Amino acid sequence: FHYLTGSEAAEMRKVRGTYSHKGTYGHALIIAGAEGKWGAAVLASKACLRSGAGLVTTHIGTQGADILHNAMPELMIQHDKAGTHFSNLPDLSDYDAIGVGPGIGKSDDTVRALKLLIQEAKVPLVLDADALNILADNLTWMAFLPKGSILTPHPGEFSRLAGSKLSHFESIEKQREISQKNGIYILLKGANSSLSFPDGRVLINSTGNPGMASGGMGDTLTGIITGLLAAQYKPLEAAALAMFVHGRAGDLALKNQSVESLVASDLIDNLGKAFESLSHD
Amino acid sequence: FHYLTGSEAAEMRKVRGTYSHKGTYGHALIIAGAEGKWGAAVLASKACLRSGAGLVTTHIGTQGADILHNAMPELMIQHDKAGTHFSNLPDLSDYDAIGVGPGIGKSDDTVRALKLLIQEAKVPLVLDADALNILADNLTWMAFLPKGSILTPHPGEFSRLAGSKLSHFESIEKQREISQKNGIYILLKGANSSLSFPDGRVLINSTGNPGMASGGMGDTLTGIITGLLAAQYKPLEAAALAMFVHGRAGDLALKNQSVESLVASDLIDNLGKAFESLSHD
Amino acid sequence: FHYLTGSEAAEMRKVRGTYSHKGTYGHALIIAGAEGKWGAAVLASKACLRSGAGLVTTHIGTQGADILHNAMPELMIQHDKAGTHFSNLPDLSDYDAIGVGPGIGKSDDTVRALKLLIQEAKVPLVLDADALNILADNLTWMAFLPKGSILTPHPGEFSRLAGSKLSHFESIEKQREISQKNGIYILLKGANSSLSFPDGRVLINSTGNPGMASGGMGDTLTGIITGLLAAQYKPLEAAALAMFVHGRAGDLALKNQSVESLVASDLIDNLGKAFESLSHD
Amino acid sequence: FHYLTGSEAAEMRKVRGTYSHKGTYGHALIIAGAEGKWGAAVLASKACLRSGAGLVTTHIGTQGADILHNAMPELMIQHDKAGTHFSNLPDLSDYDAIGVGPGIGKSDDTVRALKLLIQEAKVPLVLDADALNILADNLTWMAFLPKGSILTPHPGEFSRLAGSKLSHFESIEKQREISQKNGIYILLKGANSSLSFPDGRVLINSTGNPGMASGGMGDTLTGIITGLLAAQYKPLEAAALAMFVHGRAGDLALKNQSVESLVASDLIDNLGKAFESLSHD
Repeated sequence: FHYLTGSEAAEMRKVRGTYSHKGTYGHALIIAGAEGKWGAAVLASKACLRSGAGLVTTHIGTQGADILHNAMPELMIQHDKAGTHFSNLPDLSDYDAIGVGPGIGKSDDTVRALKLLIQEAKVPLVLDADALNILADNLTWMAFLPKGSILTPHPGEFSRLAGSKLSHFESIEKQREISQKNGIYILLKGANSSLSFPDGRVLINSTGNPGMASGGMGDTLTGIITGLLAAQYKPLEAAALAMFVHGRAGDLALKNQSVESLVASDLIDNLGKAFESLSHD
Repeated sequence: FHYLTGSEAAEMRKVRGTYSHKGTYGHALIIAGAEGKWGAAVLASKACLRSGAGLVTTHIGTQGADILHNAMPELMIQHDKAGTHFSNLPDLSDYDAIGVGPGIGKSDDTVRALKLLIQEAKVPLVLDADALNILADNLTWMAFLPKGSILTPHPGEFSRLAGSKLSHFESIEKQREISQKNGIYILLKGANSSLSFPDGRVLINSTGNPGMASGGMGDTLTGIITGLLAAQYKPLEAAALAMFVHGRAGDLALKNQSVESLVASDLIDNLGKAFESLSHD
Repeated sequence: FHYLTGSEAAEMRKVRGTYSHKGTYGHALIIAGAEGKWGAAVLASKACLRSGAGLVTTHIGTQGADILHNAMPELMIQHDKAGTHFSNLPDLSDYDAIGVGPGIGKSDDTVRALKLLIQEAKVPLVLDADALNILADNLTWMAFLPKGSILTPHPGEFSRLAGSKLSHFESIEKQREISQKNGIYILLKGANSSLSFPDGRVLINSTGNPGMASGGMGDTLTGIITGLLAAQYKPLEAAALAMFVHGRAGDLALKNQSVESLVASDLIDNLGKAFESLSHD
Repeated sequence: FHYLTGSEAAEMRKVRGTYSHKGTYGHALIIAGAEGKWGAAVLASKACLRSGAGLVTTHIGTQGADILHNAMPELMIQHDKAGTHFSNLPDLSDYDAIGVGPGIGKSDDTVRALKLLIQEAKVPLVLDADALNILADNLTWMAFLPKGSILTPHPGEFSRLAGSKLSHFESIEKQREISQKNGIYILLKGANSSLSFPDGRVLINSTGNPGMASGGMGDTLTGIITGLLAAQYKPLEAAALAMFVHGRAGDLALKNQSVESLVASDLIDNLGKAFESLSHD
């Protein structure tokens, strides 16, 4: 176990070359949202755009398309065949990183589309929320996840993945075990988030605050990791840097908010300052 | 009668534990809005999200769903069966606090749905605006309100509840009487809002300003109380702290606005600073 | 001719009483917008809400309703029977001030509805943009305008009202003549806006800047005047104070913008500071 | 080759006369967006409005109209006959400058409508993105572009126009050649954008940063050039000043963002400061 320090996070951050262009930073795909939960797609997509991706496309039911467009004009939208939820897999060949899960629900065709995504994806996936709940219902899929995929469960979601409710200490052991067995990264969210690597190492996060105990914070983390992956970060650095920056942005956002008033959008508004703060760590 | 001081309000404010999570702060339900008045739902829901609730779901006619999503991506939306107004009661088992009334109108099925809500709710309700007008038309329902419920009438709405127009002094006496008789809290809004408890005590508010005499300020108060209830505040503390913080946020908002230009959204933008200001009272 | 000074404008500004409430500041009605020009309704309505009105309702075709709700949750919306433009007169009994014209177009049923509005209104009207163009096509209606009504033409619209293109000096003479003849106020917009009273006096404005030469600035002025009328200002003070504050807000907005980048929304964002600045004039 | 300095850019900037009005600064037309890419129209239109145009109309499929209205109330919208993309040419007689291309796609009727636009336009066109891709498929149209038109390809789009992939040095030579042959301006975007004139001169840009390597930055540049053309700038000054100010706005936006978090909307928010900064160069 090791606490990730600010200077370690700072070392992971890449300097951008002068002659880079939007292609250099990749094209991210976000699959999120369903009727009543389109906001999850907004938060993940906005965070992704503000975390290094050159381009971001959100795959979404038509009912949610205008909401995404209104939220951020830089986003491109791809319509799902079903109006209200994720039901069909788009052509994946354009995308350098894929984040899936926030607010997608567990409809039958969503389950099938997720299965297909896991089978077809040639890049690491970031799986969160309902994608993890579906995975927990189909644990055999775990072995088919693209190597280097990143799972971001909160404790409830992790219990389902692990098959039983565990103490905090047991959780970290189980987390390490699942990571090693499947060659994946697991970011177990909480007051001190822990990130397990396929090689058995575990990093503990040192940023964040209790004001972040509110809806949408996880969607935002999914977006940040996916954005960094698109921008050519390796899964290890993408997951670790995202974990640190996510908490740091929450800490910075608290300067103009209180623990009661803080919301995930505030955190997104502080991503720039959070990345910049690494220069001073 | 007692003027609520800043230090008393500060004492009511709960410190958040390091290991708390979004479940700790509860799931609030807002029932608000109807055709032409969807903004009331926006204001109540945003204020709720910025006042401590872990999760907020807004129950709303489909016509209003996109407006809510556009206003705040952290919100979850539950569609009413009627497109344009509140007509059917959702499953209440998920919710720790319920705020109802801003902009809902008085359609027949709204009246029936509100009656059902009062009968079925197992948690205290916050009733405002049209919910109070409907209650005034059906005073026998008063006895069936969940214990600890909070009513937030303005003087016009209170007259209807009291059955006659009263002087300011008579109002407070009548307010105290209704609170005691029904085991409920009444927050009578005005230049010096008064909050009556079931035990006969009355608190008078000391924050706020004449710039707050504009539409939507009440919707915002409903949201704040509901958010605090979701976050495990007792009704007494939720109502008193909300009353104080609401006025304080209005006072802080005035620093960048004038009495003419101040609107309810400015107040919501200042909720974080208002909660934080309690540390200095 | 007299240049309106800051201290004169400051004297017109009313102090708000402690025990005032939203009813004290009146209910304004904005009639604006049509297909492709819904933004005109947004600007007029937002400016109205930020200029003292207790409540603002916008009467608008259904196609524009969500745009208005998205723009400002404090607004209430009343649907016109036609989806795309102003075609029917709502019940006027609730309203203390009415602003009409920005972006309404000149459809036949719009012309009829405007005629009816002029006949039925019991409060002064603020007429702008297409309402003035319709009036120019029907000059006999001028005599039926409610006493104290305020017209806000730009030079092109004024030429149509006056029946011929006039030099700047001739314009002011003609403006004074039309005001006296019809018992109305005319605010002729331009670099130095001139405001003529029914008693023959003319005030010249001293605020504003060339960055305000862009679309939507007039819609904003209509909203400010209507907001002040709702808040119980007399037409003379409402028109004069609005003219001054509108230009002042534009001047303040320029501190964070350039003449090229300034837009009407910036001006609305600075209305609070503009009203407050009067204390220092 | 010449590096455009800040003081040269400052000299190009026009002072606004006191008695100018919105007509003085012209009416710009933006043709942009299609299903899934409405945001491109938002960015181009907003940038245009904040770059000097007196009025801006966006021609857009009905599906995108509300998104544009929500983004900026100062915009006017003209509906295309097709709901989802650019398919028919509007009456061009009202417009002083026309920007076309961001996000329009390459549908058959879009190709036909663009051809008609090139044939009918009596003012210089700004062509970007898919308009350039269509042009690359129909190189004979190049000779029919209105004199003084401005093309803004990124290197990929330029390769298609040039007919082959070229080294950086070869690109500039080819760029100069195409400009001279067709009497047009070409702004080849990149880390050091180059702007070629019909007379053979080439200006190299000195502003901008690697944070601008993300989606939507080009749409924004199209809007700025079109706005300056509407405001009576000659094509040479419009293109050169826009190139400089676009990069400067990106540099200023970086003060509150990081290279990872910067998005095109941040740049638009800093256009005012970028224009103002020219006074200090």
